[in-house]
Amino acid sequence: MLSEDINKRPIGVFDSGIGGLTVLREIARLMPGEDTVYLGDTARVPYGSKSKETVIRYSREVAGFLAGRGVKLIVVACNTASAYGLGELKKTLAIPVIGVIEPGARAAKRATAAGRIGIIGTEGTIRSNSYVNAINALSGDKTRSVTEHGEKGFDRYFEIETDVLTVFTKACPLFVPLAEEGWTSNDVARLTAEHYLNGIKGRGVDALVLGCTHYPILKDTIAGVMGPGVKLIDSAEATAEETRRALAGDDMLNGAAGGAKREFFVTDSPERFVAVGKRFFGPGLDTARLVTVGA
Amino acid sequence: MLSEDINKRPIGVFDSGIGGLTVLREIARLMPGEDTVYLGDTARVPYGSKSKETVIRYSREVAGFLAGRGVKLIVVACNTASAYGLGELKKTLAIPVIGVIEPGARAAKRATAAGRIGIIGTEGTIRSNSYVNAINALSGDKTRSVTEHGEKGFDRYFEIETDVLTVFTKACPLFVPLAEEGWTSNDVARLTAEHYLNGIKGRGVDALVLGCTHYPILKDTIAGVMGPGVKLIDSAEATAEETRRALAGDDMLNGAAGGAKREFFVTDSPERFVAVGKRFFGPGLDTARLVTVGA
Repeated sequence: MLSEDINKRPIGVFDSGIGGLTVLREIARLMPGEDTVYLGDTARVPYGSKSKETVIRYSREVAGFLAGRGVKLIVVACNTASAYGLGELKKTLAIPVIGVIEPGARAAKRATAAGRIGIIGTEGTIRSNSYVNAINALSGDKTRSVTEHGEKGFDRYFEIETDVLTVFTKACPLFVPLAEEGWTSNDVARLTAEHYLNGIKGRGVDALVLGCTHYPILKDTIAGVMGPGVKLIDSAEATAEETRRALAGDDMLNGAAGGAKREFFVTDSPERFVAVGKRFFGPGLDTARLVTVGA
Repeated sequence: MLSEDINKRPIGVFDSGIGGLTVLREIARLMPGEDTVYLGDTARVPYGSKSKETVIRYSREVAGFLAGRGVKLIVVACNTASAYGLGELKKTLAIPVIGVIEPGARAAKRATAAGRIGIIGTEGTIRSNSYVNAINALSGDKTRSVTEHGEKGFDRYFEIETDVLTVFTKACPLFVPLAEEGWTSNDVARLTAEHYLNGIKGRGVDALVLGCTHYPILKDTIAGVMGPGVKLIDSAEATAEETRRALAGDDMLNGAAGGAKREFFVTDSPERFVAVGKRFFGPGLDTARLVTVGA
């Protein structure tokens, strides 16, 4: 009886804003019977340019809100929050917590034949080195060398060689505002992608991780620059699969065939969230409620 | 004696992040003997896409911090905070508060010969209609018509005719991330400026207000798109002049010839603030202290 109650509880999903809706979309597609509660921390978006300490504090506050709504599992659908805050949340919450980094890293390792992987993300995600660490852990943790080429300021470039894989990373700060502006395939988007990606492209990678939940919106443009030989890893799909696996393992799947209830909360500007979010989630996002979290 | 004490107190300046440094630079140039305290609310940047209520709350918290440092006057060096929060701050603070909107509007009215003014800014500033209201007030408050062409989502376009002036406004959300990325004059910056400005350019304006403190960093690119017949109004200069006028009027000028003390505070990532802020302020910004405000 108690177990049945748990199964019917919603899945909690959060992001700094609207990007995590790409993850929620995959969860809804894979598990159409699961109720969901989504929170976008739009009053404090973006997390990507903020410090580790601040992102951890925000993640804790936002996860606390979801836990208070009685969710059975929390998906951290934000790469920066996953990179900085996941360990802390796993330690302090009594329910399972799933991030987007590990599923993406695993999918990248499966996808590469050449053993050369590219990672793109926000400044925070790239600086955290989380994808590199996750891939390294999957490769037996035998790092041969770590080289950091600081091109300028915080726009860093890493080259990590393991016994199995070589990883190249690149921060792409303009991709988020481009996606939010809806400039996903125009000349500005294409030129920006060329500026950011030409370096990685020249390194012979055959798998590129879209290490930010906004980036799937720019998938066609990124694919156009990288060329047909490069597989793009959308961690949203991998994360949805990981979520199903975790729920099944704990015998917490809902089992309903559809008709799930979807709740959306934001910390600022519900109208803007709905207007822009439709591009990310598709139909089914018609209203969002304003809540105060933290501050 | 008390009066002398007041004169020696610093000027407080705040912005959501680093953009307000363009205003501080002009204040330092015009009044090299005035001590200054700058606060960038980098934990919650940007304000431009956030709601009126949230921006007012943030502005109140940040201004409260500066008041607590004993400043004699506060400059709201952020267009969005000026648009939404200035009235509230003037009501609740015992010291003078100066925003960037009115000085910019006055400078635009002086600069136009054709009577056609363009205003560019963040979503928040443009949606607030503050520049239009300020210009309208300066023109005798005789508005003939207000037309709103919603091009898409929140990217609105206004056309306001008064007896004297016609005003065209345009939100340019990508200019801030471009300025922060340091892409101020490359092909992406130029193409983005063309996308945003071609509409206004076609309306025959001869004065364009850079209604965001980040935009002076993109001045050359914006000027290149608008052409030599259009004067760019940098409200930083106008705001510095207004500040001197206000201090002189209240007999609160310091009078020292130079050697001013500059303090910088941020709510997140001091290193990033200093690294990126140098482009905005120039020499003299070597260190910033981390403080908690609000949350």
